[in-house]
Amino acid sequence: MSGFSHLDDCGNAAIVDITDKEPSVRTAEAYGFIRASEAVLDQIGQISNKKGDILAAARIAGIMAAKHTWELIPLCHQIMLTNVGIRFEVIQEKSGIACTCTVTCNGKTGVEMEALVGVSTALLTIYDMCKSADHNMVMTDIHLLSKKGGRSGDFCFKGDLTE
Amino acid sequence: MSGFSHLDDCGNAAIVDITDKEPSVRTAEAYGFIRASEAVLDQIGQISNKKGDILAAARIAGIMAAKHTWELIPLCHQIMLTNVGIRFEVIQEKSGIACTCTVTCNGKTGVEMEALVGVSTALLTIYDMCKSADHNMVMTDIHLLSKKGGRSGDFCFKGDLTE
Amino acid sequence: MSGFSHLDDCGNAAIVDITDKEPSVRTAEAYGFIRASEAVLDQIGQISNKKGDILAAARIAGIMAAKHTWELIPLCHQIMLTNVGIRFEVIQEKSGIACTCTVTCNGKTGVEMEALVGVSTALLTIYDMCKSADHNMVMTDIHLLSKKGGRSGDFCFKGDLTE
Amino acid sequence: MSGFSHLDDCGNAAIVDITDKEPSVRTAEAYGFIRASEAVLDQIGQISNKKGDILAAARIAGIMAAKHTWELIPLCHQIMLTNVGIRFEVIQEKSGIACTCTVTCNGKTGVEMEALVGVSTALLTIYDMCKSADHNMVMTDIHLLSKKGGRSGDFCFKGDLTE
Amino acid sequence: MSGFSHLDDCGNAAIVDITDKEPSVRTAEAYGFIRASEAVLDQIGQISNKKGDILAAARIAGIMAAKHTWELIPLCHQIMLTNVGIRFEVIQEKSGIACTCTVTCNGKTGVEMEALVGVSTALLTIYDMCKSADHNMVMTDIHLLSKKGGRSGDFCFKGDLTE
Amino acid sequence: MSGFSHLDDCGNAAIVDITDKEPSVRTAEAYGFIRASEAVLDQIGQISNKKGDILAAARIAGIMAAKHTWELIPLCHQIMLTNVGIRFEVIQEKSGIACTCTVTCNGKTGVEMEALVGVSTALLTIYDMCKSADHNMVMTDIHLLSKKGGRSGDFCFKGDLTE
Repeated sequence: MSGFSHLDDCGNAAIVDITDKEPSVRTAEAYGFIRASEAVLDQIGQISNKKGDILAAARIAGIMAAKHTWELIPLCHQIMLTNVGIRFEVIQEKSGIACTCTVTCNGKTGVEMEALVGVSTALLTIYDMCKSADHNMVMTDIHLLSKKGGRSGDFCFKGDLTE
Repeated sequence: MSGFSHLDDCGNAAIVDITDKEPSVRTAEAYGFIRASEAVLDQIGQISNKKGDILAAARIAGIMAAKHTWELIPLCHQIMLTNVGIRFEVIQEKSGIACTCTVTCNGKTGVEMEALVGVSTALLTIYDMCKSADHNMVMTDIHLLSKKGGRSGDFCFKGDLTE
Repeated sequence: MSGFSHLDDCGNAAIVDITDKEPSVRTAEAYGFIRASEAVLDQIGQISNKKGDILAAARIAGIMAAKHTWELIPLCHQIMLTNVGIRFEVIQEKSGIACTCTVTCNGKTGVEMEALVGVSTALLTIYDMCKSADHNMVMTDIHLLSKKGGRSGDFCFKGDLTE
Repeated sequence: MSGFSHLDDCGNAAIVDITDKEPSVRTAEAYGFIRASEAVLDQIGQISNKKGDILAAARIAGIMAAKHTWELIPLCHQIMLTNVGIRFEVIQEKSGIACTCTVTCNGKTGVEMEALVGVSTALLTIYDMCKSADHNMVMTDIHLLSKKGGRSGDFCFKGDLTE
Repeated sequence: MSGFSHLDDCGNAAIVDITDKEPSVRTAEAYGFIRASEAVLDQIGQISNKKGDILAAARIAGIMAAKHTWELIPLCHQIMLTNVGIRFEVIQEKSGIACTCTVTCNGKTGVEMEALVGVSTALLTIYDMCKSADHNMVMTDIHLLSKKGGRSGDFCFKGDLTE
Repeated sequence: MSGFSHLDDCGNAAIVDITDKEPSVRTAEAYGFIRASEAVLDQIGQISNKKGDILAAARIAGIMAAKHTWELIPLCHQIMLTNVGIRFEVIQEKSGIACTCTVTCNGKTGVEMEALVGVSTALLTIYDMCKSADHNMVMTDIHLLSKKGGRSGDFCFKGDLTE
């Protein structure tokens, strides 16, 4: 069943065997965006200038979730992350907040899911903390920007985005 | 700090006090979409006809994640969910898979975050299980479709989507 | 699809909707047995008389696991347990240790899985703590002894056992 | 206190010190069986032919639980598993389902508990998903089939079974 | 075995049976203090004025840990918290940071452990984030300030403290 | 922002990058003390002589919590511990119980937080199991005794304590 390494020959879910892979430094960077009303963004911007607690909470939630990826995604391997970083950019002209998550490990398999889980959870936390002001936020363009290391070679995103 | 119930008067993160709220039936429905190459969709479609393991795994991952929402999103309350449902629709003409997650509780606060976490994790699991074939998938249009119950009244999404 | 409440009309996994069920006191009792060599049992017996740490650890592991049932078994609801008890009996003539776990809640669904998870984890912990002396232990006869409360009525086990 | 590596000289629970052990490839395979009424087995068989969701859910639950072994069994070390596989066989003449779980790591200690936890949780999930049809199922013959690698040498089960 | 509700008549660990208790509003407040060098406090103070990330992270960690109390403390019941608050006060003249955690539930048992776990984890997070500057910090005076609600009546701390 | 390795140049929380560090054997030992009334200590002492379940439960809770440190403390790395030990000493003349936790790993970063979390959780478990007899217990003097290994060199505590 070529191309789907998570399914065995009978189509059953199976974890990918990485026993014989060599550990190496692997990095992945993911991106996502949350659209919010201008009123909401203004308030986040102001808080960010003063206390930054919404983005601080979202950053911590994203970092913690990246470490939990193997518990959330059924067939992910346990990986000991050596670095996790979350960055936000409030983009007024697009009426939203961009988030990137960069994850590094020195392991036997890639960390793209960890980066994607980090971004998703950071955006969901922003949603949670602002939802009392506006439930019409939309999370969009969540994708893998790039990954490096490992046998399968480096990757740069070549798909289509919205924003 | 009107409109941001998760921040106290000093702008510090704080859980919302729901001690005096009455429990009632609350439902929330969230939606998300993952764009994938036609080649990938064809294979998912075939597997779905035979064994369905990719969508079965994604459904279970979404249900389990919805129950874990209070562990992922820092200021979410612990809520005992009474129902969680995940539905998928492979949409060939949009080249992707739509996912909805419906969550119900009989509790003191809403379950919109649980529905959004369920959708996000289901889509991430699809990404994980198909990524060996294509890393250019994009998760998009993740939003709250509707919610019912509770003091703040019913909600229907009125924002803008991409697909 | 009568008889399988965890599958929807399409055969897909689904959590059972308990939104409209009334909370009531529900109790379940499960049983399991681990066969071990006499040499092992003698040592456990002696330790039990002095310090009891193997059975103390197994008791605590079983109680903690019962509380985690909703995280282990994909379609289990989150239930707040009001009582969990684990009892052991070293049975020299059967060359093993019997374990029962009794769980109570005041909730909308039964706690039979919690009792079964409690017994299984207690037995697995005994295995773990004694395996350096003997890897030939066998866990057997794990079943639901009885359950009380709820709409479906009381249940007493009527199947066949080995020991 | 020879033979019980999990107890210190005072009989207190203690984790085994593996600091100075060399990492190596270690594999363990565990087995378990669940007896169920013929009516239940017929329905599982039919669903398995069509959708397979009961066994798909049980397979995923077993894989996820194997990764969580160090959280369930108090004195187990954290181990990064490199492979986990779950197989089922519906055995009509024995009126039940056999399950094996094979786990591999490249680490400092064995993975027999991970294999046993994987099997136990997979069987418990089958129980959960079929219990609305029959509560008289029995889980039996849960044991370690074999293990390979590590200083203590290979092991093959030599005990007695029921089925 | 009067006075020790967590031990059964044989001295074995047992969860307290709260099945027949009535739910009511219960509040607990705990306190703790971390001593740190003046150099460290100065820097925390400055950061707090600007970004507050150390205390923001500690606040979130304390809130999340309070929700996890039933997973950390073996015989604690699962309780759905309705409110958790963490407050810090940098006390220059005592060369340290005071932390209080207030927890509320509407449940069948008290939340004193949740308040104590919240304080402890908040202080440990401060330690973690400042330890690169000074490993000589000491956490002290961790105790229950007061609790209200429930059958056993209100409590105010009457013990001795250090600071 | 010298001295605070957990904050990036903008003062935002960030995990420390350990990708390029060499794994080595690292050990940390932490200490804590819980003051309790003499009546309580007498009973713990008696139970300890007979069954020891309070200290057995606290020991297991501390070991399990040490393994969970990366889930509790937001910016801690996931570390695979190779050894965890918890020791208690009932000190009648100080009217309390001293606890030490020693943790070892063969990894890229130190285990001082793991040792501190182990001690704190062990003391909190003692509090939980004895609180029905006395809520005036105080946990104090929780600090790092020493750490060895790693690039930053060995450490011995040089601060001030109470008891």
